[in-house]
Parts: sequence; C-alpha cells; structure tokens
Amino acid sequence: MDGGAAERPSRTIEAMTSTSDNSSVALPPMRFDLWGTADEAKPLSDSIKKLLSQAMGVDTDKDHTVDAASVTLTEPRLSESAVQDLERIVGAKNVSQDREQRMARARGKSSLDLLEWRSGDVVSAPDAVLVPGTEDEVLAILEYCSEHEIAVVPFGGGTSVVGGVNPVSGEFDAVISVDLRRFDAIEDVDPVSGLATLGAGLSGPHAEFLLAEHGLQLGHFPQSFPYATIGGFAVTRSAGQNSAGYGRFDDMVRELTVVTPKGVFHPGKQSPASAAGPDLKEIVMGSEGAFGIATRVRVHVHPIPQVKRYEAFVFPSFGVGADALRAVEQQGTGPTVIRLSDEIESAINFTSSDAIGEKSQAPQGCLCITVFEGTYEHAESRHKETRELLLASGGTSVGEGPARKWEEGRFGAPVLRDSLLDAGALCETLETATDWANAPRLKKAVGDALATSLNDSGTMALVMCHISHVYATGCSLYFTIVAGQDDQPLAQWRAAKQAVSKAIEANGGTITHHHAVGTDHMPYMTDEIEPLGVEILRGIKRTLDPAGILNPGKLIPAGAESNPS
Amino acid sequence: MDGGAAERPSRTIEAMTSTSDNSSVALPPMRFDLWGTADEAKPLSDSIKKLLSQAMGVDTDKDHTVDAASVTLTEPRLSESAVQDLERIVGAKNVSQDREQRMARARGKSSLDLLEWRSGDVVSAPDAVLVPGTEDEVLAILEYCSEHEIAVVPFGGGTSVVGGVNPVSGEFDAVISVDLRRFDAIEDVDPVSGLATLGAGLSGPHAEFLLAEHGLQLGHFPQSFPYATIGGFAVTRSAGQNSAGYGRFDDMVRELTVVTPKGVFHPGKQSPASAAGPDLKEIVMGSEGAFGIATRVRVHVHPIPQVKRYEAFVFPSFGVGADALRAVEQQGTGPTVIRLSDEIESAINFTSSDAIGEKSQAPQGCLCITVFEGTYEHAESRHKETRELLLASGGTSVGEGPARKWEEGRFGAPVLRDSLLDAGALCETLETATDWANAPRLKKAVGDALATSLNDSGTMALVMCHISHVYATGCSLYFTIVAGQDDQPLAQWRAAKQAVSKAIEANGGTITHHHAVGTDHMPYMTDEIEPLGVEILRGIKRTLDPAGILNPGKLIPAGAESNPS
Repeated sequence: MDGGAAERPSRTIEAMTSTSDNSSVALPPMRFDLWGTADEAKPLSDSIKKLLSQAMGVDTDKDHTVDAASVTLTEPRLSESAVQDLERIVGAKNVSQDREQRMARARGKSSLDLLEWRSGDVVSAPDAVLVPGTEDEVLAILEYCSEHEIAVVPFGGGTSVVGGVNPVSGEFDAVISVDLRRFDAIEDVDPVSGLATLGAGLSGPHAEFLLAEHGLQLGHFPQSFPYATIGGFAVTRSAGQNSAGYGRFDDMVRELTVVTPKGVFHPGKQSPASAAGPDLKEIVMGSEGAFGIATRVRVHVHPIPQVKRYEAFVFPSFGVGADALRAVEQQGTGPTVIRLSDEIESAINFTSSDAIGEKSQAPQGCLCITVFEGTYEHAESRHKETRELLLASGGTSVGEGPARKWEEGRFGAPVLRDSLLDAGALCETLETATDWANAPRLKKAVGDALATSLNDSGTMALVMCHISHVYATGCSLYFTIVAGQDDQPLAQWRAAKQAVSKAIEANGGTITHHHAVGTDHMPYMTDEIEPLGVEILRGIKRTLDPAGILNPGKLIPAGAESNPS
Repeated sequence: MDGGAAERPSRTIEAMTSTSDNSSVALPPMRFDLWGTADEAKPLSDSIKKLLSQAMGVDTDKDHTVDAASVTLTEPRLSESAVQDLERIVGAKNVSQDREQRMARARGKSSLDLLEWRSGDVVSAPDAVLVPGTEDEVLAILEYCSEHEIAVVPFGGGTSVVGGVNPVSGEFDAVISVDLRRFDAIEDVDPVSGLATLGAGLSGPHAEFLLAEHGLQLGHFPQSFPYATIGGFAVTRSAGQNSAGYGRFDDMVRELTVVTPKGVFHPGKQSPASAAGPDLKEIVMGSEGAFGIATRVRVHVHPIPQVKRYEAFVFPSFGVGADALRAVEQQGTGPTVIRLSDEIESAINFTSSDAIGEKSQAPQGCLCITVFEGTYEHAESRHKETRELLLASGGTSVGEGPARKWEEGRFGAPVLRDSLLDAGALCETLETATDWANAPRLKKAVGDALATSLNDSGTMALVMCHISHVYATGCSLYFTIVAGQDDQPLAQWRAAKQAVSKAIEANGGTITHHHAVGTDHMPYMTDEIEPLGVEILRGIKRTLDPAGILNPGKLIPAGAESNPS
C-alpha cells in the first residue's frame, strides 16, 4: 500500500488555514519563490557543488536566494468601489489586496518564474485575491468582471510550470486571482460505479485523504501531487506516475461542473460513454481556465489496492528498453507504473543524491521501474506476465530496491531544483510525446537543441531523459536539464526553450504532453493545432466568455500569431 | 483467429463496382429498402410466424415488401449550370442524378427508414450524388455549395439508424449526397507504433482485408461492420463488439483529416496524448458531418491475434450477471469481448432461430459471452483470471459452444429484421448507457416505457436487453423490440421511441451510447448536453461551416429547441 496519500494531507491542510491579513484568505502552502515550503529545503551536497563549479562554472558560494522584503510588486489597481462590489459578492473576508497574498499568487513554479523573483525586476501581481465558496458566487464574479472589464485568473495549487497562473491583464485594466480552495468537499461517493465528486480546490493529498475514508483511491500522482488541485489536474490534462495503470487525469474524469460567464454546465453528466455528439468534457479539459472555471470534478476512483509489488530492471541501452516498454504496453500486460531512464539519468538514479558526482559502483545501463497494484491475484499475474516480457526483451532484474527508492523520492526533485537555483545553477524540465517509431529521432533532436543552445551560452549542460507515460502507439519523453547560469539566466533559458520547442515541432512531437500551454507554450499552438484549430478555440471562447476576461494571454494565440503567413 | 474479416470484403468490393447509369458512380451494396442485400434475405420459420400471428396479431400472409418501381421520389432540383459546375469539380463521371443512385442514398437503415419505403409516401432523395476523390475536390465542393446555398450530406456505408444520412435540405433549395467511397486507400502503415492511415470510405471488411496483408487488425466489429465505413465509425462514435479489449472506435482514432468549408485540418496529428489544450479530435468525433467531412483516419491497429479463446457462462439473474461483469471490468481482468443477455434474450439465444417460439430444453438464466484474443500466453492468462472471477461471482460455465454460436451469428440480426418488417412485424433496437449503480433503474424504466406505449397501440411487445460494452464506471444497455405493426406503424414506433427517449433522459441514461444523433435523437440533445452545450456546438459550426450547409437538421437543435423555457 502506498503511504504517500495518507501521510501528506495534514501539513497541507494546516498550511491552508494560515492567514496573513484581516481577511480569512489562506496562503497557499508553497513559498512564493520556491517549489516547496521553506522547511523542505535541502542544502546541496559537497559533491554536487563540486560538479556545478568544476563542470558548469557555477560559483556556488554566491547567494541567489530571494529576500521577500526586497521584492517590488505592481501596485493594486482595483478601484475602491470595485473592491466593495466584489466583497458584496463573496464577503469581505474572502477578498484580499494584501501584499503577501498577492505575492503568493503572482507566479507559478517554472524556472523562469523562480528566476524572475531573483532578477530584481518589478513582478506583476494580481490586483486582488478572491476566494468564492459557491458556483453562484463564481458566476457573479464572472458576470461582474465581464461587465467591468477585469481579467480573471483561476488559481488552484499554483504549481503551473508554463505561466498558467500568472496574472496577465491582457487588454484589461486589472486582474484578479480567483482561488478555488473553498471548493474542498467530497460528495456523491458511489463505490458501486467507482465514482466520486471532488471539489476543484482539493489538493492531491487532501482528496486522497478524504477518499481513503471510503476505502477508495484516485491514484493520480504527478510530481505536483503534494500541492496541485483536482481542478487544475482536469483543466491542464495532468498525467500522473501511475498513468499506465489508471490513465491520465483526463481518462479519470467522468463529469465536470464548469462556471462560465454565460452560465453553468456539466459536460459528461450522462454516462460513461456516449455517441450524443462531440465530447464536451474534452473541450473543458485542457482549457486552462480560458473558457470557464471548473468547480467540481466527478472522477473514477477504485478500491485502495490490497498489495503493491515492485521490480526494477536494467536494459543495455535506451533503445532496447524503449522497445521493451512498447511490447509491454502493446501486449497489455498491465503494470501500474512503468518507466525507463536513459543512461545519464540512470547513472544519477543509481547514485544517492548525496553522492552525485562521485564515482559509483552501480549497474551500468538504463533503469526501468515497474510497480503493480490491485488484488493479490491481479497484481501477481500482471507482475508475472510483465516481468517475463521484460526479461525476454533484454532486461535484467535488479530487484525491488531501486523501484522502492524511486517511489520514496518521487516528489523530491522540484525541491532539489530550489537548492540548485539558489546555488546559481539552471535547472528545468520539459516534456513531449510522440509515436514509438519516432521517439529516437525526437529524443536526439531535443537533446541536440538543448546542448547547442546552452553550450552557446557558455555552459556544459547535463541533459537527462526518461519515458514515464506509455501508450499503445507512443510514449512521453521527459527531460531534466542542469547547467550553469550565465549573467542573464532568464534570457539564457528562454533561448534554450525556444530552440527546443522549435525542434519538438519540427520532429513530430507535441509541445507539451502534460505540462499544459499557459503563456510559455502559446507561441507554438498554431503549429500544434493548425490555424483552423486556433479558430475553433476562439469560437468556443466567444461563446462562453464573450468579454474575453478569462485567463487572457494564455493558451489561445491572439490574431497575428495564428496566421504566421 | 477471426475469419470474419477475411471472408467478407470480396462481396462488398464487388458490389461497390456495379453501376447503373452513364456515370461510373457505384451503387452502395445494401438494397435501398433492406439492411442486407437481396440474396441475404432469409424467410421466417413457421414457428416465428406462429409467434407473430398468435401473440402479436400480425397477419404474416400479407406482403409488406416494396416494389422499387412503385416508389415515388422527389424530383432532382439542381439547375443545369449547378450540375455542370459540380461536374467540373469532380469530373462528370463522378456526378449522378440517376433515380437508382438517388434512391440508394435517400434513407438510412432505421426501422422508420425501412417502414417509410413501405408507406407509399413520396420519399425525399438527394438531388445529386457526388463522388470526390481528393481533399481538394471535397474542399471545392464545400466552397461551391457554401456560395450557392446547397446542403451537403456526407455518405459512407449508409448504415445510419438515426436518420444521419437522410437528405435534409434545411433552409436550402437543394441537397447533394457526397459519397466518400473513393477514399479507399490504406497509407502510412507503421507496425512499430501500431498505426495506419485509412481512407474514410473503406468499409469495415475492406479495411480489415487491407490491414491483414500487413499482419494487422483494427478489431472494430459493430453490427454494421459489413457495410459501414471508417469515416462513419469516427464521426458517429461507433462502438464495436470487441470494445472491452480494443476500446470504442473513438479510442482507436489517433488523427483525422477533416475538410471543412474553411479549410483542412488534422486534429490529433501531434502525439498519442497531449496537454496542448482541448482535444480537437473529440470535437470531430461525434460531429456527424456537421462540421466537416472526414476523409482519412489514422487509427491504432494491432497484430492479428495468435489465438482466440471462447467461454460462455450462465448467471441466475441479470442483476447477478451485471455485478459479475462490473467486477471483471473494475478489476481489469482483460476479456476482449464480454456481454450479458437478460432472461428473455438469453432464452431466444439458446434457441436456434428456426425454433423460436418452440419449447426449449436450454439452460435457464442469463447468458454471458466471453472471448479472449492475443498471444497464446496473454489470452490464456486473461481467460483464467476472468473465468475465476465470473465463477466466483455466481456464474456457471456452459462451455465454448454458445460463445462460438454468438460470434457466427453476430452480424445476422439486421437481416432477420428485414424479414420481420416484410412480414408485418415491428422490429427495432435502441441503446443507452449509464453508471453501474443506475443500470437496474434505467433498464426497468426503458422496458416499462416500451411495453406501455406498444401495449397502448394494441400489440404485445417482446423486449430483450443486453450489456455489450462495459466501462469501469458503467455499461451500455441495448434493447431489441419485436411487436406487431398497427395501421400506422410509423406513428406507432415514433410514439414508442418518444416515450422511451423521455424515460432515458429522466432516468440518468444517455440518449445514445453508439447509434449517434442524426435527426432522430436531435430533439433530446438540449436535455443531453444542456443549452450551453448546444451553444458550444453552434459556435464551432459557425467557425467551420458559416453558411450552415453541412448536414443541416441533424445533431444540433435549431434555436427554439435549445431553450425549452
């Protein structure tokens, strides 16, 4: 059984009730300039510091941390009467213009976001934070803001790594952040059908904690799990580490309650599957708050597994390992988790994080992790069929140790990034997906683009890659990059990201497999979905959000960008 | 191995090359007033005739067959210049105003369609039939028709049972049927990724025949398989009998080529899964030709299975059997086919069709069919785990015989309907889906509504039901109805269908699980997807088909209907 779900909520729930001004608005648990909370921070080991300074030219003695008091935010711009009107809608205690509240919702958690705090630039913050508690209140906010030309940014866990929660005003004079945290109930638990309705503001751990009281589990564990919310998972098409067994989050969603400026609707309400026209759930999922605000999500849940089985394997090369994962998925042998690291990531995984940079006696090759959940019989039979196929496909078992170690550390990488950024290193992740046959070409193209761009900026770059989501027809490719910062790290990373994004579009990948679009991937959407696809999204937006107040400047490219001719 | 795919294409391909006028336009293989071809017709046995006459008051000696020469069609309405313009686009040999060609595309295959031929009423036919061969030609047709106010109905296999191919002119003065049969190629076969691009006009057997040359299979076997096309499967969200193993057709689609009046686009082109905004494939699937014409579909294919294993079970009641199917799907034991008939359908299934109405020594209870495909090892392990769970859930094995018998006869039921209609009986099917917990309530409500309405019309009704598609959270319910026709069988069935449709919407079902919307389910779409859902579909249609020429009067309710207030 996975202890993760049961252990984590207490801290998060506690953090959610802390407050810093007269309102009762709670602060998000993540520190404004870090992924984790301050007490999660972990200093870098001497061996990592040596690697950074010797190979990447990073001066690790220089302090890159941010002093909150020295940050300059934009001034709040809402008129007093607008604030009073909004207070009438949600109650005064659910509106805040407090600096700390605005700062906590001014940026997501991409490395660009975190570097921006460190840049000394003035940071755009939302002009106010609202915390509605009912669909009627959300609707009233959207109607008011449509009439008074105020942009609205929905806010869940604040974990976006693509600029999704950043307070872009667009053509409007002000922008508010609408925090969904009061939608935190679990309703309509139907253990027969395996369905539960969850408030959009519930964090991953909080949702699992409430489901566990019914003996049920959602089983969605993306790296953002400790902080991200049910609503955010749905509208960004999140994919979790158990996707091989339980699907992506969009596979788990049965119905959504969506509040738009034109009213409320419930796509998916009818049935598990339907031929009654286009699937409107699939329009809301991926809409990133640009069409409406999801307040409740009815999801597929399943009994807490009786057992978990673990086994790790090593493959002689990434190509051989990828072929083995493909065989497993195409045969349907049924692992809950299956993932494969490339040679570089495997070498790092086989090393304890304290010993990175040291010489290691770990096995050579590419590490593959498998986990099997379910009843005793089901997990055993799935494990047996999978391991036989992996062994027949060139794998060697290395026991359960590396799989258990992976699971224990699986939410820790973003916290390590905090320390790397504080030490003056660049650290970021990016991801794509493609057909199995195209995966080698795409992996090489991405790696080359990153190495070239970062080498041009004067640093060696460590590029690691893994497959963590498999489909019958293809797989994801997830890259982690560590390099040295130059004098202008924001520009340095933007150049690398642009180079790699162009390489992805030119080599048959999607611009994002599970991080969503936000501001950062918007310039590539016309290539991704073609001009007619952009027109469709605009048409839907005109229908649901005619004033255009919902999350402007994200997801849907503006006019000029959609016709590059 | 399933022989069905390899046996059938020859006849269909042959029928597709027959022609009846100076053009080279081929006639669809199905006879205009029947599901099957004339040589498939099978006379009713004496025992069935006795059942019809004694229990349902049907005078089986009366002849209800249709004389083609006596049918009155609407006159062609295209101007000579319009015909010349259209001939310039696709070539004169690919345009026909011939009576037989128009008649063959005047109606789909619902019982209402088939009864209408028998009613003596004037039948609306398309004003011309066009058979384009390239996306450029399709685009030119759509641009021309947008400019000249001609409605366009895409035509694949003509198997719609909801009015989907019927030539509704809407607000326009003329309507043409655009037959996709020339999009009949297989391209881009990628056996590594398990992907193949299929022409939208390929019939099910023809597609399987071409894939088999590569050792591959699609595995989509709806009852319409012998005639329906790849494009039709996609835009109507078809579900086949192997859906437990291979998914619905919408699960199989990776990418579509869609020609709209505003241009061509390719939703899904990027990758097996993406977080780059809403999934635009899901807008095209279910759009039933109202947004554009699908010309190519890239689908997930898999190796032809090494082995097929069969086993049938009997459950003491439908409720116990449904719980067993639910356990199988929620545990994920992996059958390729799993279905359960209720008591009445089981009794009929256990009887040979020649002996319906006779006393039978067959097992009592509800018949469950399972089939397992794949490699030897995979099929065996999935079979073992599934059978153990079914036995533990109250099932009794009755060996492989009934499962093989089901497979042999699985495309035959619509042909039997032809004979029943010709004999003066009513025979129709309808289907819905819902959560597992709600299935008993919905099944009872549908059965009651049918019995009440048909009894009111003066006939006893035989109502059979089965579950043929299972999901983790719910299942389909498929009903077959046999009753006696009264003097006005069209009005009689319309009243029954309205009663049952209202019962479905009032009892938590979807108006259609896999038959699509067309004209027949359109009145229920506002209940199904809410007024805001209808507005979204209208907004998409305005974007892609601003003149509104594509399949008017189908899928999307017109103004007044969408706001029942």
